[in-house]
Amino acid sequence: MPFPDIVHPAIDAYESAVPMPADFAAFWQETLAEARAIGGAVTMVPAETTLKLVDVFDVTFPGFGGHPVKGWLVLPRVREGRLPLVVQYVGYGGGRGFPHEMLHWAASGFAYFRMDTRGQGSGWSTGATPDPVGSTSQIPGLMTKGVLDKNDYYYRRLFTDGVRAIDALIGEDFVDPERVAVCGGSQGGGIALAVAGIDARVKAVMPDVPFLCDFPRAVRVAGRDPYGEIVRFLAQHRDKTDVVFGTLRYFDGVNFARQCQAAALFSVALMDDICPPSSVYGAFKAFAGADKTIIEYEFNNHEGGGPFQDRQQMAWLSKRFL
Amino acid sequence: MPFPDIVHPAIDAYESAVPMPADFAAFWQETLAEARAIGGAVTMVPAETTLKLVDVFDVTFPGFGGHPVKGWLVLPRVREGRLPLVVQYVGYGGGRGFPHEMLHWAASGFAYFRMDTRGQGSGWSTGATPDPVGSTSQIPGLMTKGVLDKNDYYYRRLFTDGVRAIDALIGEDFVDPERVAVCGGSQGGGIALAVAGIDARVKAVMPDVPFLCDFPRAVRVAGRDPYGEIVRFLAQHRDKTDVVFGTLRYFDGVNFARQCQAAALFSVALMDDICPPSSVYGAFKAFAGADKTIIEYEFNNHEGGGPFQDRQQMAWLSKRFL
Amino acid sequence: MPFPDIVHPAIDAYESAVPMPADFAAFWQETLAEARAIGGAVTMVPAETTLKLVDVFDVTFPGFGGHPVKGWLVLPRVREGRLPLVVQYVGYGGGRGFPHEMLHWAASGFAYFRMDTRGQGSGWSTGATPDPVGSTSQIPGLMTKGVLDKNDYYYRRLFTDGVRAIDALIGEDFVDPERVAVCGGSQGGGIALAVAGIDARVKAVMPDVPFLCDFPRAVRVAGRDPYGEIVRFLAQHRDKTDVVFGTLRYFDGVNFARQCQAAALFSVALMDDICPPSSVYGAFKAFAGADKTIIEYEFNNHEGGGPFQDRQQMAWLSKRFL
Amino acid sequence: MPFPDIVHPAIDAYESAVPMPADFAAFWQETLAEARAIGGAVTMVPAETTLKLVDVFDVTFPGFGGHPVKGWLVLPRVREGRLPLVVQYVGYGGGRGFPHEMLHWAASGFAYFRMDTRGQGSGWSTGATPDPVGSTSQIPGLMTKGVLDKNDYYYRRLFTDGVRAIDALIGEDFVDPERVAVCGGSQGGGIALAVAGIDARVKAVMPDVPFLCDFPRAVRVAGRDPYGEIVRFLAQHRDKTDVVFGTLRYFDGVNFARQCQAAALFSVALMDDICPPSSVYGAFKAFAGADKTIIEYEFNNHEGGGPFQDRQQMAWLSKRFL
Amino acid sequence: MPFPDIVHPAIDAYESAVPMPADFAAFWQETLAEARAIGGAVTMVPAETTLKLVDVFDVTFPGFGGHPVKGWLVLPRVREGRLPLVVQYVGYGGGRGFPHEMLHWAASGFAYFRMDTRGQGSGWSTGATPDPVGSTSQIPGLMTKGVLDKNDYYYRRLFTDGVRAIDALIGEDFVDPERVAVCGGSQGGGIALAVAGIDARVKAVMPDVPFLCDFPRAVRVAGRDPYGEIVRFLAQHRDKTDVVFGTLRYFDGVNFARQCQAAALFSVALMDDICPPSSVYGAFKAFAGADKTIIEYEFNNHEGGGPFQDRQQMAWLSKRFL
Amino acid sequence: MPFPDIVHPAIDAYESAVPMPADFAAFWQETLAEARAIGGAVTMVPAETTLKLVDVFDVTFPGFGGHPVKGWLVLPRVREGRLPLVVQYVGYGGGRGFPHEMLHWAASGFAYFRMDTRGQGSGWSTGATPDPVGSTSQIPGLMTKGVLDKNDYYYRRLFTDGVRAIDALIGEDFVDPERVAVCGGSQGGGIALAVAGIDARVKAVMPDVPFLCDFPRAVRVAGRDPYGEIVRFLAQHRDKTDVVFGTLRYFDGVNFARQCQAAALFSVALMDDICPPSSVYGAFKAFAGADKTIIEYEFNNHEGGGPFQDRQQMAWLSKRFL
Repeated sequence: MPFPDIVHPAIDAYESAVPMPADFAAFWQETLAEARAIGGAVTMVPAETTLKLVDVFDVTFPGFGGHPVKGWLVLPRVREGRLPLVVQYVGYGGGRGFPHEMLHWAASGFAYFRMDTRGQGSGWSTGATPDPVGSTSQIPGLMTKGVLDKNDYYYRRLFTDGVRAIDALIGEDFVDPERVAVCGGSQGGGIALAVAGIDARVKAVMPDVPFLCDFPRAVRVAGRDPYGEIVRFLAQHRDKTDVVFGTLRYFDGVNFARQCQAAALFSVALMDDICPPSSVYGAFKAFAGADKTIIEYEFNNHEGGGPFQDRQQMAWLSKRFL
Repeated sequence: MPFPDIVHPAIDAYESAVPMPADFAAFWQETLAEARAIGGAVTMVPAETTLKLVDVFDVTFPGFGGHPVKGWLVLPRVREGRLPLVVQYVGYGGGRGFPHEMLHWAASGFAYFRMDTRGQGSGWSTGATPDPVGSTSQIPGLMTKGVLDKNDYYYRRLFTDGVRAIDALIGEDFVDPERVAVCGGSQGGGIALAVAGIDARVKAVMPDVPFLCDFPRAVRVAGRDPYGEIVRFLAQHRDKTDVVFGTLRYFDGVNFARQCQAAALFSVALMDDICPPSSVYGAFKAFAGADKTIIEYEFNNHEGGGPFQDRQQMAWLSKRFL
Repeated sequence: MPFPDIVHPAIDAYESAVPMPADFAAFWQETLAEARAIGGAVTMVPAETTLKLVDVFDVTFPGFGGHPVKGWLVLPRVREGRLPLVVQYVGYGGGRGFPHEMLHWAASGFAYFRMDTRGQGSGWSTGATPDPVGSTSQIPGLMTKGVLDKNDYYYRRLFTDGVRAIDALIGEDFVDPERVAVCGGSQGGGIALAVAGIDARVKAVMPDVPFLCDFPRAVRVAGRDPYGEIVRFLAQHRDKTDVVFGTLRYFDGVNFARQCQAAALFSVALMDDICPPSSVYGAFKAFAGADKTIIEYEFNNHEGGGPFQDRQQMAWLSKRFL
Repeated sequence: MPFPDIVHPAIDAYESAVPMPADFAAFWQETLAEARAIGGAVTMVPAETTLKLVDVFDVTFPGFGGHPVKGWLVLPRVREGRLPLVVQYVGYGGGRGFPHEMLHWAASGFAYFRMDTRGQGSGWSTGATPDPVGSTSQIPGLMTKGVLDKNDYYYRRLFTDGVRAIDALIGEDFVDPERVAVCGGSQGGGIALAVAGIDARVKAVMPDVPFLCDFPRAVRVAGRDPYGEIVRFLAQHRDKTDVVFGTLRYFDGVNFARQCQAAALFSVALMDDICPPSSVYGAFKAFAGADKTIIEYEFNNHEGGGPFQDRQQMAWLSKRFL
Repeated sequence: MPFPDIVHPAIDAYESAVPMPADFAAFWQETLAEARAIGGAVTMVPAETTLKLVDVFDVTFPGFGGHPVKGWLVLPRVREGRLPLVVQYVGYGGGRGFPHEMLHWAASGFAYFRMDTRGQGSGWSTGATPDPVGSTSQIPGLMTKGVLDKNDYYYRRLFTDGVRAIDALIGEDFVDPERVAVCGGSQGGGIALAVAGIDARVKAVMPDVPFLCDFPRAVRVAGRDPYGEIVRFLAQHRDKTDVVFGTLRYFDGVNFARQCQAAALFSVALMDDICPPSSVYGAFKAFAGADKTIIEYEFNNHEGGGPFQDRQQMAWLSKRFL
Repeated sequence: MPFPDIVHPAIDAYESAVPMPADFAAFWQETLAEARAIGGAVTMVPAETTLKLVDVFDVTFPGFGGHPVKGWLVLPRVREGRLPLVVQYVGYGGGRGFPHEMLHWAASGFAYFRMDTRGQGSGWSTGATPDPVGSTSQIPGLMTKGVLDKNDYYYRRLFTDGVRAIDALIGEDFVDPERVAVCGGSQGGGIALAVAGIDARVKAVMPDVPFLCDFPRAVRVAGRDPYGEIVRFLAQHRDKTDVVFGTLRYFDGVNFARQCQAAALFSVALMDDICPPSSVYGAFKAFAGADKTIIEYEFNNHEGGGPFQDRQQMAWLSKRFL
């Protein structure tokens, strides 16, 4: 099948040209400071399930704007001492689903938290977290929600939620604050990269086929949504190209990667027409940390490594954290 | 080509079974009262165009919640006395576009107002009106935005905007308050039906292939979006079927039709797989007013009568209002 | 969205008319007897994983013809006494995958075995079990592999493997032979139904949106593969219709259901165009056992209840077996 | 796969309601008389091929309006006496192609003539015959070419060509005028039926999955082109429905069948979504001749019986003519 | 989304290599001379509409071969002196439609004429003009109608109609013969370019995303019809490639551009897979006139600038002509 | 339409880089020796047909493993002396069909044999030959059947059948052993190339748009199946890439071409997205024989030259063999 993007050796030479705004770090520091200033309470309610090997808690924590954000916390029932923490973010359209849907991290001895995605959670798994903020004219979906102003952009709120999830858990007695990892596939990988890029408490990041990277290229190469939402928006708002790309650079995985020092395990798929491989490599190459690895799947589309990559992650993180 | 719905004679026997909530009228009276209580200013700024035969104004008026809503007002440059007013609402995804895109009402001697659609305006024509209200988990698009509570549902705000547009214009000296008509195609037809159903100042309503009618049937028959958004939402939120249909009956064109006394010119297309013809007939048959007509296009899909129906409308309304 | 099959109330009146061959029971008794006579060794090799809460074994057991068949056995690491056993069969095209992919049964306190599917295991998850038997002319896929003779038909071998998996495990000291359940979705549900229909040791069966039921109707209603493989075969082999349906009745879930006395939890989706809901109801109504329940998902296609149904199963089986 | 039309037993009760114009026979008598009055020369030029068992002639004969129409005549090289003649007409879009493409009639001992189709011959096989007549506004394709007037309609010319082909050959010394058969698939079957309906010299007709039958139903049931050309025409020309169907009844296979006394071998495919099976049965049931048979292919789409039907035809016609 | 053609900077370097026939100018001079020699009467019948601000005339004029061609003439009702004239040609498949469908030119103070397209007018708007000329074997559609001989090619007739429309109007007392502009989108843009290239009375030309330019490249790059008609023709008529391209160069927008001196406002869309942007740039670069501008829409497919480009045109032409 | 692969001049410079295994010739010698050692009987049963100009025999011969393989032998009824033999292999999914389906070789004076394809014969024509050998996990279809071991690979058996067909016929008294040709389209062309590459008795080979050539490139370029089966297999079996390509090089048309000395007539289509033209040129350029020709069809997809190429073949081979 034809590759939807450049391949080796051309992809080896590719460097993302996404501009780094001068106030990028300041923008995010202020955003986090503002969210933390609003504060809010964290609640952890034991969930009723048939599961016997793990304890499950239905967590609500204050995200951006103090808005309540949900998540599932799953802990080995038999545990001792502080555990390493894995926070997982979810792919586009989905929500936190049910706790029994992903047990392999807890079953491997980690404290595992799956954060819900505000305003999504209806596309392929269910969520329970509103996004109580409106928008100017937009294309259905989240990619253009508030995109005409970086302060209104949807992903400002979502990335902030991602950091606030760590804020909510890191002080608990079952968490070892020195062993915090974030992960996720696609949009989840993009969030993970953003969180790791603005929160130095994160020691390991595992973005799988990450979305939200290298927007100027990805928007022009991806063959399928969600990047296409931006194309359709610009096809109508023909005079807004500069404004839109001006916003997006504050949310670009390449820029988060440029300032991230965590250990990193990326994955990329060469037949991925949702998250073009050059955009993933663009972020990987820009990644500042020295301990970085990328696993490539030549014949996969956006499903990437799937359970093969889960195994890579479990081995890679167990070696570092256990 | 196969018809996507029942046809004659079966369609003649079809009656919508959508329930009428006991507090339907009260719900809308309270909603309008609340919006009017908030109030807000109307502005009309002359727009710069090359058009010489008409005057164009860029109007901003307070809609639901006092939120600013945009619209284009187009008047014959040479005019005398009070003119009949035609308010048009726009189809799903679109916005008010540019004033030169639809001139036939003003060119026929009407005051013409095209209302922008909050939060849409990016799909096939551009808009400039935000929807500054957020949502629980939803499917991309508007159909499930806030659908779990009738007070939060997106269309509560949009239908209210539709009435408030008339509030904004009816007192102007170029408008004859006794000759107010509303029209629109698809979603625009659904809004027109809703506005005519809750605002007795409307003397004529012209819904073309109207959307938002007879939800329980339309959701189960329509072959394409946007009704499909509701199906996809329920496919994930498998336990919310009753809640969703409980909300939708407050926004169903059949129920607006049941209490509308304006003169009406409907259109319907028998190959329409977006707005199933039985759902349109469901609203038409339920329509309470005695002066009602429906034009049927047997071999058309959702484009319906197109310019043929424009001509029908211009003749029908000119006969009544000019 | 349009329903691909009849719905309520028509579906309530539907009864499958698939004929029951006089020698149906005999055919299967002989088939099992023949397979058991060949015999073969069972091996259970501990698998290396990062999982700490469970023990995983890579099992090989003799299936039809004594052919080696693989599976993953997952047990709670901390366990006492004999556990109830859940055997899961896999959907069309898939294989046993990796042990970490489905942990919720073991995490709920069950001995869990996922049987590999001979000759498949390349479509959406990986397998490791050959089908060392050839075929006459066939359509790509398994549906017509050997279909011209009931003794050569692929599913004769696969269903036999399903019973032989229980043979392999039921004598182990961690299994309670009085609490054996089988489950699976789609093809996996069809295998579960077949195994429960010919092996009285099975006390509970949970077929989700089962495939391989009510062939004469399903082949004529299903909008997508794999039933379509049979249509395409008959479209070429225009003179083989009677032979093909003559074979299929020995493998029809309706006939297995007619002689099954286990407790049963079915699921069905009304928008399923792969396994038509009438074909599922056809099997459910024919099901002989008195303790039977079916969960219906109105707005789902073949994904059915997904994690909602997992929860139903865990609750239903825990109540009966724990 | 779902059937695109009614099936047994409903199809057994179906009768076409296409009206028979009072002047139907007169219209065709006059049309033929007019064409014959114009006259024109027939030429038969030996064609250069590598074929050794047959003689091939490149024939040009005067069709409707005296327009030159091409065809391939293929005769067994070794022959004696007068041969039965098979005239084949070609499916929609195609042309006469090359003589080596269909040799089984000549190889079975028939004089075989494949008539080119005026103005087509570019879609799946090549033709060499112009249609030197223009048209009012039309949909791309032939179905609406001149459809607003029965005298201008494309098929008036093409059906006339079909009779004139027989005129051109029947007097040759290698043809037995008492043994003339016509055949064809799809459009070719429609032409064959028309020719047999207006030319009593035809003693046998073999329409395979015939097109151009029972227009009022076919246009509303067929899922794919070419019937869809008429739907698209009427979707634009919303005021021309009566005119169009008024023309089509002069060209409807049902009406030709009603006055045909030849022996007939039809075929029909129940999954045919180009030529709906009810429209074929509509023509078959209306067929006046007593010696009529129809072969049904349950699981085929428009490919119908393919080579299976060829064999049926060769056996059926050999039995009657050899 | 991937671009279907080369983009910047590669597109900046692209030059069309379409050959200019030595007798190109002569061919068109003779064609026009021949058409004018045949002559014919022009009629202008006032049309009945509800429009009050404009006068509408149903025009019939003699086109190629003296064939009657229709068009709508729309004039401001209140007018004085001679008006600049805008002649618009219509996109592929459409016709002149209804006069109320496009009013912005007359509303801006221009005499506006929309010419019908012979033999089309059934695809997306209606027409009323026959093409009374037949064709050799062709693909459905117009692209290959008569393509084997430049004198028979459909576009010879249509381009001639375009010039004859100006002949019909330029002498009227409401037209200023020094201010004649032509415009159109897609096929309409191709006709506009052709007319401006062979008729020096045209002072301004506005081709939007023009079709019929740079055939040798466009046929090999365009992803969708109508250029694909030529591909499908050549896929069957495998021996006609040279003949076809030999004809097309007499109808290539690049060659008309090479000899055009009018002021020009082009538009191009970089995601256009119907009219590849390189083919549009090919014509634009070859355009001989010095006063030329092109507006580029990066994220649009064949819809191009839509109403944004309308506004560009109205401003650009008003500045030059008003 | 866009070309799916490189075109001129880039394609002229392309050379396949598929590696030649050191034991390639030995592997095939041993394979043939093994098959011949098993032996088996050839039967030729006169077939009942209506055909009078030819004699048809239903042939069964021993193929790989001595498995019975079917074929149709068609001879001119009137014949003298030894005839040149044309053996045709069939495209992917098909079977030998019926003898009347392809008569042009026998009608041109050749002994013609169409070999059935083991285990296929259900996709577009029927077959009657089983493949009595099973497989490890595979994708539906034949491309990955046994691909993990070159000795188990399906095409080892099929190519051997191709040679054994010649073994079966070459000694018959109606065959001239010095005039043996092989041909086929797509998969049939791949088999023909393989047979000609390992069997020096073949004096002429005519591969049309051959499949199974230059796997490493074809798998990465082809836009449609069957090469895509390999992509999907590797998308699941992410760790098997080297093993799979290690097997495929023993079955690659490029390697057969490198050792073939027969006269060759290839064809290639530049819009072929099933068998990429570069992969066909890869084999053609590697072809060792000096008497080689390739016919190129620029605007065709996988249908290639169709009947045009048949004529080329008949002329080319008649010139050499008659």
